[in-house]
Amino acid sequence: MHVLVLGAGQLARMMSLAGAPLNIEISAYDVGSKSVVHPLTQSVIGHGLENAIETADVITAEFEHIPHDILAVCEQSGKFLPSSDAIKAGGDRRIEKGLLDDAGVRNATYYVINSREDFDRAIEHVGIPMVLKSALGGYDGKGQWRLKDPTQADSIWAEMAECIAATETQAIVAEEFVPFSREVSLVGARAKDGSVAVYPLAENVHTNGVLTLSTAIADTELQQQAKQMFTAVANKLNYVGVLALEFFDVDGTLLVNEIAPRVHNSGHWTQQGAETCQFENHLRAVCGLPLGSTKLIRSTSMINILGEDTLPQAVLEMDGCHIHWYGKEKRAGRKMGHINVCGDYSGELQRKLCTLADSLDKDAFPAVHEFAANFSE
Amino acid sequence: MHVLVLGAGQLARMMSLAGAPLNIEISAYDVGSKSVVHPLTQSVIGHGLENAIETADVITAEFEHIPHDILAVCEQSGKFLPSSDAIKAGGDRRIEKGLLDDAGVRNATYYVINSREDFDRAIEHVGIPMVLKSALGGYDGKGQWRLKDPTQADSIWAEMAECIAATETQAIVAEEFVPFSREVSLVGARAKDGSVAVYPLAENVHTNGVLTLSTAIADTELQQQAKQMFTAVANKLNYVGVLALEFFDVDGTLLVNEIAPRVHNSGHWTQQGAETCQFENHLRAVCGLPLGSTKLIRSTSMINILGEDTLPQAVLEMDGCHIHWYGKEKRAGRKMGHINVCGDYSGELQRKLCTLADSLDKDAFPAVHEFAANFSE
Repeated sequence: MHVLVLGAGQLARMMSLAGAPLNIEISAYDVGSKSVVHPLTQSVIGHGLENAIETADVITAEFEHIPHDILAVCEQSGKFLPSSDAIKAGGDRRIEKGLLDDAGVRNATYYVINSREDFDRAIEHVGIPMVLKSALGGYDGKGQWRLKDPTQADSIWAEMAECIAATETQAIVAEEFVPFSREVSLVGARAKDGSVAVYPLAENVHTNGVLTLSTAIADTELQQQAKQMFTAVANKLNYVGVLALEFFDVDGTLLVNEIAPRVHNSGHWTQQGAETCQFENHLRAVCGLPLGSTKLIRSTSMINILGEDTLPQAVLEMDGCHIHWYGKEKRAGRKMGHINVCGDYSGELQRKLCTLADSLDKDAFPAVHEFAANFSE
Repeated sequence: MHVLVLGAGQLARMMSLAGAPLNIEISAYDVGSKSVVHPLTQSVIGHGLENAIETADVITAEFEHIPHDILAVCEQSGKFLPSSDAIKAGGDRRIEKGLLDDAGVRNATYYVINSREDFDRAIEHVGIPMVLKSALGGYDGKGQWRLKDPTQADSIWAEMAECIAATETQAIVAEEFVPFSREVSLVGARAKDGSVAVYPLAENVHTNGVLTLSTAIADTELQQQAKQMFTAVANKLNYVGVLALEFFDVDGTLLVNEIAPRVHNSGHWTQQGAETCQFENHLRAVCGLPLGSTKLIRSTSMINILGEDTLPQAVLEMDGCHIHWYGKEKRAGRKMGHINVCGDYSGELQRKLCTLADSLDKDAFPAVHEFAANFSE
């Protein structure tokens, strides 16, 4: 079985590692260079999308910001999964919010802004404080504003107007500010036959808008809410593959914040912590194989490695620490890899996170240090 | 870090999969074709050994039957690990038996045969029944004879003489027949600093001389014996990397049968069952990184897939079954892949093996069926 992945980053790389034992070969289409590369070695193995589509059994994607013409060609081949609708919803905040409404899942009140008049109507409809997000191209905290006071409206509008003008079909989505106590996410898979398997929820810590720490949690009540919403969204899209839903947890009630139509950073813990990892389950789904068990096998946290290309020896030595480098060149803030930390039970995992804080740099790994500080209080 | 592996089979492939997350890149030298290939894709990435040696940081091997001239060139580079002595011991039964004696570990009485006169002396020295093994090139039950009765000596000698004549420096090693109750093996790693980490023992079932089923076992007394002998052999060789020792278990007393100076088929269960798999630990050792924990995390069995290139859907569906294909073309009896089966405790694993027997073909997976038959008795 040969799967072509749109995008040649770490998610395609980890799909390749998970696919090999199932004899599923992965090639990756680098949308920027228009080359087909091996996602592990990054060596060029072909040119042009058409040829790559021709030789693939299945086509999927590792990211949602895919030019719509490329998406159309892939969809035409009849081999593309999960579906271009899902990718579009993940890549356009307007479509995403519409989808959440259509699927009947709780999400923050919103209003789409194309003009200054819309902005005024949004303030009326949504209220202040308000979060404003660019409809296209925003991720990891980019393209976001917060309106806390009406007096900020003019200066924020100036920036938003520039953003709208810079990209054709761009818009801003105004959303009510949700006073959430934490962010959690649910990663799961839906198979061709409609069966759904979800992993345990992960509790996520973001630092400057970027995920830094993700821990699998056991909460029967939240899990049930999340699974119900996951199933509603996945069914609405007739989704096939791994899908991630990010939630605001507002005192035990979940609101969907956003969806990611792909394997997700907050699901990397499944490589060590779940019976089947998210990369294998995505491939199983799109290749028409039965889904693998998503059950938790160990208490696990995932720590993102941002902008660093070495780790202290103590991390390699520590029992239960699993390092996953992405083979990338170092750049400030870049996702270079992650560490999965496992314990036999939750308390052991917490203890290991505290021990890790002793050896990991405070500036590079703020979430681990924050965890350790809160834990010792 | 770039590691060159001599041999381009499934062991190099699984090293590649285990090395990628540590940013350790593997290339494989195919001794037959003299090509350097990527062990995952098998695509040719270079020619000639010298160039490959030049660009590698470390050189290691996935098999022990390596021509001595190739070994010498690798050794000269100063990059080869574990050591050519270890490889030679693994590839020559005479050297191996000498090593076991030198290390002071229990092994079966033996006698080296180069001539018919030697054969007669061997019968006197070792006694009947006796097992006879070619010193070079024997594996998976090939190049072996059993002398149960003096009247068989002439016909067996005819075959052995042919074997001796066929290969320069060939000989036969006569060994006392050990009335063992089972075969177990110990896989472990020794680091550059001399530290040793061993996995739990595995109990192995061979069918027609080929490993078919391997299960991690917990037996404190045997584990202690095995670790002591492992350490003696590894220290004697100043070994660096993963080493496997196969033992006869004679009513609770272990005798070393043979050693494999490499990652070993009976250690494949560590991919799911141990904190760090044998492939990662071999790479950690030869790259000078600290060894990873070898602790058992789940009750695990490994089932070899021989000569089959498909499996029933039920295996893919079964919770705790992990399939590892080697991307090879189907040939009768060929090692095509393996299945790791995990349970949260030993009884669950046993139950799963019995369930597997219901879906796996009896002729292709005799050991699983035998297990299930014994279990239900």
